[in-house]
Amino acid sequence: MEYLKISQILKDQPVGKEITVKGWLRSVRKNKSFSFLVLNDGTCQGTLQVIVDADAVENYEEVSSLLIGSCVRIDGLIVESGGKGQSVEMQGKAVEIYGKTDESYPLQKKGTSLEFLREKAHLRPRTNLFGAVFRVRHQLAMATHKFFDQQGFYYLNSPILTAVDAEGAGEMFQVSTMDLANIPKHKDGSVDYSTDYFGKETSLCVTGQLEGECFAMGMGSVYTFGPTFRAENSNTPRHLSEFWMIEPEVAFMDLEGNAKLAQDYIQFLIKHTMENTSEELEAIDKFLGFQAKQNKEKYESHLPILEKVRDTKFEVISYTDAIDILNKSGKKFEFKPEWGVELQTEHERFLSEEHFKGPVTVTDYPKDCKAFYMKQNEDGRTVRAMDVLVPGVGEIIGGSQREEDLGKLKQRISEMGMHEDPLWWYLELRKFGTAPHSGFGLGFERAIRYVTGMSNIRDVIPFPRTPKNCDF
Amino acid sequence: MEYLKISQILKDQPVGKEITVKGWLRSVRKNKSFSFLVLNDGTCQGTLQVIVDADAVENYEEVSSLLIGSCVRIDGLIVESGGKGQSVEMQGKAVEIYGKTDESYPLQKKGTSLEFLREKAHLRPRTNLFGAVFRVRHQLAMATHKFFDQQGFYYLNSPILTAVDAEGAGEMFQVSTMDLANIPKHKDGSVDYSTDYFGKETSLCVTGQLEGECFAMGMGSVYTFGPTFRAENSNTPRHLSEFWMIEPEVAFMDLEGNAKLAQDYIQFLIKHTMENTSEELEAIDKFLGFQAKQNKEKYESHLPILEKVRDTKFEVISYTDAIDILNKSGKKFEFKPEWGVELQTEHERFLSEEHFKGPVTVTDYPKDCKAFYMKQNEDGRTVRAMDVLVPGVGEIIGGSQREEDLGKLKQRISEMGMHEDPLWWYLELRKFGTAPHSGFGLGFERAIRYVTGMSNIRDVIPFPRTPKNCDF
Repeated sequence: MEYLKISQILKDQPVGKEITVKGWLRSVRKNKSFSFLVLNDGTCQGTLQVIVDADAVENYEEVSSLLIGSCVRIDGLIVESGGKGQSVEMQGKAVEIYGKTDESYPLQKKGTSLEFLREKAHLRPRTNLFGAVFRVRHQLAMATHKFFDQQGFYYLNSPILTAVDAEGAGEMFQVSTMDLANIPKHKDGSVDYSTDYFGKETSLCVTGQLEGECFAMGMGSVYTFGPTFRAENSNTPRHLSEFWMIEPEVAFMDLEGNAKLAQDYIQFLIKHTMENTSEELEAIDKFLGFQAKQNKEKYESHLPILEKVRDTKFEVISYTDAIDILNKSGKKFEFKPEWGVELQTEHERFLSEEHFKGPVTVTDYPKDCKAFYMKQNEDGRTVRAMDVLVPGVGEIIGGSQREEDLGKLKQRISEMGMHEDPLWWYLELRKFGTAPHSGFGLGFERAIRYVTGMSNIRDVIPFPRTPKNCDF
Repeated sequence: MEYLKISQILKDQPVGKEITVKGWLRSVRKNKSFSFLVLNDGTCQGTLQVIVDADAVENYEEVSSLLIGSCVRIDGLIVESGGKGQSVEMQGKAVEIYGKTDESYPLQKKGTSLEFLREKAHLRPRTNLFGAVFRVRHQLAMATHKFFDQQGFYYLNSPILTAVDAEGAGEMFQVSTMDLANIPKHKDGSVDYSTDYFGKETSLCVTGQLEGECFAMGMGSVYTFGPTFRAENSNTPRHLSEFWMIEPEVAFMDLEGNAKLAQDYIQFLIKHTMENTSEELEAIDKFLGFQAKQNKEKYESHLPILEKVRDTKFEVISYTDAIDILNKSGKKFEFKPEWGVELQTEHERFLSEEHFKGPVTVTDYPKDCKAFYMKQNEDGRTVRAMDVLVPGVGEIIGGSQREEDLGKLKQRISEMGMHEDPLWWYLELRKFGTAPHSGFGLGFERAIRYVTGMSNIRDVIPFPRTPKNCDF
């Protein structure tokens, strides 16, 4: 008998065909002479209802007593369904029980808050909500590869282990194979790394950008898509210690091209996801509405905003103009907007949500707000940075044109009190055949959070890592 | 003027059109009244020859004196080429110099051994050989996503930071934010992890399989594609400390299905790469032949073997039969084949290269050779493991059906002297709705090495990490 996945069955509706289906029970309704089993196999949002007659299967007593979450194989006949909201159902002929559950199974119909499910991250992909979230995540990843591949970008696996603090931020995880109970030390008490695996201090990467630049300066257009790490002590719904990042880097591209690429990419992500996971987005939206209602909160679906971002040309303004707009707005902010200081989320959200009522890219930030590698403008005060702001979250992408002039780059490194030595190879990109180039970074989980509307970033990554939390 | 990439120019051959091209000089040949500049921009293996007349451009003296590796923008007219092996060339009208090089530029025509280029990993993507290798790498990654996505698999980002030693091998990198010069300790001298970032001992993952199983047991079919780490002290051409791995995991799939999936995947990888990077594979083959000749070694192209693996049904035999074949072969091995001992590379290569003369999948290994999670056979001696062996390298894929029975799994964990506690969540997959399931792992760099024919694994990853080596 042919084994069909539930997504296929719902799509092809093979009425009159005897087939096999395999999956987990979402519900069991037992009557005297027949039972309804509702089955999901993870291949789609939908479920298949199976009617099992008491005299149709040998093990009816056992089958009809199965609990939610049990795993079964069912052979049966696909028939048209009389039930509301379902096109076909199955008449069960034989049921094999792969695995039962018991009363301790945590995913009961009630009492499964998002917080609770985070502690059951090994089981939550079996729920309706998380199945939807992770299918959207999958499609966002596929859209990313498709977008860049189609435009001739090469996928670059930048290194995870690194001896360079590329952002100069210092919040890095150390990596070592030394016996931590017996760290070898120099006479002055400092750590002697000579016996460590790499023979020197090593950390987990915070970005793949610098290595991306190496490859762009030879292969033209590249993008990374890999894990990055921050050892910040931030316990917020917006921060993860381990997250995935996408970083394109393009030779011969200036800031205008960079802004255009960022717009195209975000719009492609939304378009692809809406086309391929509309049922999932609706299921999540429904859940969020339900959750808000339970908490007696107002709920406004984010899906219309997503559509607007997908279809609207992104405004582009300078940071200086943005400060002007903020100061003339008459709006009272917690932090007063001030030239020379990085924009706060409240400013970013005001610009995109209230002033422009749509996505906006802010360019040319004060140089002291930004990293050493950004291209310096002739005004001596600003750099060719850009942040893309979208309604609902504020900044979603940060990027820049890179400083391609060796002398200016060295001067900036010195001004910022950084050391040239570990960056010798990065500087050589400017010494040998330098070229204008630009790139940006998108936090993958921030994008998933944005597209799904999920409020906590821990609910859009399979196994979240946060301070004091490295379970599973 | 329209800016075209060299891949587009060679494909579309826009003869008679004035366009802009940007790239790095592969060679410069200066004559009295004109010069030949050969340009590559990383978009393909090919180059564009540009003829610059002395009186056609203002800065002729400077342009004709440029060194290899310099970066330029050239406006010019595309014309048919009289030169051998090239369809079109360009008559240069204006040249902008983005970045010069000097005599210290390491990528001169001569003296660039692979060893030397490893120390210039930031520049080697600019070479003909490494451009080819990394374009093949890109296509293998795209093929991987395409293969699994088309079959309804979901891409899973399994966690990198972990508190579990999933293979029980112990060769893991530790991760910490504690001050290594002042490690807090308990009274007995052991490390006090309570103040560490995660509050416990944490490492870098060696596999994503266990988390893959969590997702397969709800979403059906998943695959990981991410970095994994081994802190082994292996300085060989086959080992990296940081490498990328692909691990599919499928609910309701038995070992036969697993072997079929592995064959389909490998054949798809080869097919896709041969279709999309034939020029690159030929360029690498040519280089390897040239290198062998220089070293006075015999060279046999691996491309015919690749084609055979692409087109041949993989044989499937049991480990017990394999031992039999080896012992009856009359061949003298360094290590005598013996039931109960893992096959050596010489055995694996004999089986695929000499005996079967093609790919072969060996199944049902002695349980003591394999990991705790493999499904136990009824004979009490073997497990449902499989290794896929291909001519040229031996093992390329390892996998198994997983033990789905909670009792048997617990017993095996205990037999092997492992602890159940950190695996509580993994065990719960068997407690709640367990199902037959299988999966395998493919080391991405081993696959690239196999497809390209490159002999050292450090030459197929952008920035290799090996003992005492974490540069860039």
